[in-house]
Amino acid sequence: MRGAVLYAPGDVRVEQRDEPRIVAPTDAIIRLSATCVCGSDLWPYRGIEKIDGPRPMGHEYAGVVEEVGGAVTTIKPGQFVVGSFFASDNVCEICRAGYQTSCVHREGVSGAQAQYMRVPHADGTLVATPELPADDLVPSFLAASDVLGTGWFAAVAAHAGPGKTVAVVGDGAVGLLGVLAARQLGAERIIAMSRHESRQKLALDFGATDIVTERGDEGVARIKDLTGGLGAHSVIEAVGTQESMMQAIRSTRAGGHVGYVGVTHDVQLPGMELFFSHVHLHGGPAPVRRFLPDLVDLIWNRTIDPGKVFDLSLPLDQAADGYRAMDERRAIKVLLHP
Amino acid sequence: MRGAVLYAPGDVRVEQRDEPRIVAPTDAIIRLSATCVCGSDLWPYRGIEKIDGPRPMGHEYAGVVEEVGGAVTTIKPGQFVVGSFFASDNVCEICRAGYQTSCVHREGVSGAQAQYMRVPHADGTLVATPELPADDLVPSFLAASDVLGTGWFAAVAAHAGPGKTVAVVGDGAVGLLGVLAARQLGAERIIAMSRHESRQKLALDFGATDIVTERGDEGVARIKDLTGGLGAHSVIEAVGTQESMMQAIRSTRAGGHVGYVGVTHDVQLPGMELFFSHVHLHGGPAPVRRFLPDLVDLIWNRTIDPGKVFDLSLPLDQAADGYRAMDERRAIKVLLHP
Repeated sequence: MRGAVLYAPGDVRVEQRDEPRIVAPTDAIIRLSATCVCGSDLWPYRGIEKIDGPRPMGHEYAGVVEEVGGAVTTIKPGQFVVGSFFASDNVCEICRAGYQTSCVHREGVSGAQAQYMRVPHADGTLVATPELPADDLVPSFLAASDVLGTGWFAAVAAHAGPGKTVAVVGDGAVGLLGVLAARQLGAERIIAMSRHESRQKLALDFGATDIVTERGDEGVARIKDLTGGLGAHSVIEAVGTQESMMQAIRSTRAGGHVGYVGVTHDVQLPGMELFFSHVHLHGGPAPVRRFLPDLVDLIWNRTIDPGKVFDLSLPLDQAADGYRAMDERRAIKVLLHP
Repeated sequence: MRGAVLYAPGDVRVEQRDEPRIVAPTDAIIRLSATCVCGSDLWPYRGIEKIDGPRPMGHEYAGVVEEVGGAVTTIKPGQFVVGSFFASDNVCEICRAGYQTSCVHREGVSGAQAQYMRVPHADGTLVATPELPADDLVPSFLAASDVLGTGWFAAVAAHAGPGKTVAVVGDGAVGLLGVLAARQLGAERIIAMSRHESRQKLALDFGATDIVTERGDEGVARIKDLTGGLGAHSVIEAVGTQESMMQAIRSTRAGGHVGYVGVTHDVQLPGMELFFSHVHLHGGPAPVRRFLPDLVDLIWNRTIDPGKVFDLSLPLDQAADGYRAMDERRAIKVLLHP
């Protein structure tokens, strides 16, 4: 089969790889209907995150079950399924509390930028659609696998809801889908922070009520201006840099909530400032599995259309072009056809 | 009148000072029934927090109203009142959300280690008892002013409650009263981390079910041992050092809550570890005023006895001895009689 492998910063190759096989009796093998490039794939692509050898890439997936192991009971061959970037048993105490990405049996999922992939803990990890979906729904189900689920978690962690003003730091796919989530959760006002016209437009499509183009201290000042000097009730952080984390914390009112999902590379939070900020801070690797059943319903019923974040579609063999387009911010998110 | 002033690290003097007067029409003047030394007073006493001149000390107070300004409507002369270390209007949007220590009109309160003090925003800041209390209740009302209110906020921020295992990092007065708060909030299991016999005993009196004497990584390992490898649901941090904050975060299970109230001097939280910890982090200067009406009731009805944290009582003129006893950890908390 064909699959994308990162050899070194900037060097992604699609090459012939062995097809995955059932390893544990709880595994499933999936034939991918679509896959994509994640903002977090750019960390190793840019050399910020080190790799210790060629790395099969991709952790976002939706597709049709080809085969299941002997211990898989609820997931069946032929079903269309969506999963998440960590496999989880969905029965341990941590999973039952809604933190499947910290499942005591969690396993990372990789190699999704390919024609086939292996998913561990298939019963705990995968959620099936009622029937095989129409083709035009596939990008939205793929989005549910990571960026929608992550934006949704950020909005929930930020306590977005009725009566709330929500600010969103980061205009990548996760931030934009954080806007969509905040709207679905009933937020009154949603301020998207973006200086890119195409992303602003999508933010407004997804339900943003205000656009702020400033960032850093000026961005914070604009959020304060828009909120009677107090700051937003809820702030979604979807970047993961020192600047964006501090922008998120400083944009939040005392007693408000920051939901952070940008992977916080090289971030150090100053204790005294955090202490006096009085914010609630929660985030981490989004437990997408918690939200998947609801998200699958919302997509199946065409209530939401998160697939709009894919503004470039390429054949899998052109994955390298997809990485480049995202790295250069020419594309918001790139879908790959296996 | 007599009042305590810090001149330099280790140099507290009780001297003759001017009696405070009404400055703003929203002020009240209080004759202190009792005052005390706070763990946070030890930061400047030890020279860790710099002072830029002689500083009148003390911010914990309970006493009888002597005089009120022309705009004070609910607080009356002759009432016994309890307040907190920040004066708040209790009507702004931040106060109404329960964050009175970030009130848009907040003012620091100081000079409480004295015979009289001025309290700004008297109507918003002070809570009166139904009648003048019996003498033996005064220490408990004084505790409500800061250490009880702070321990209570930490327990609420840590989501202590029925079915929860709560760990408490720090065996000072705040940590011990965090134990009491967790018990009142219905926690199932309360693990106090302490290696001092007298503090362990008080923790057990206040409702702790387990004592852990280890600290740092060993303390974390013990908490994990006691919680099926997962960590506590709720952790109260009541110290404020890098080590204690990391101990608190690492003792908390994924999805659990850290309530931190130790003033985080020189603390830097590593972003990546926080991200993957999956904890909720909330804390800061405790909005004691949020809890005061309930705390005053619980004390008035003799449901709780937080005054037990005072294990040394001295005349105000011996304040320097009180600071020394707390600095050397010979006393948990020192009450001063004005």
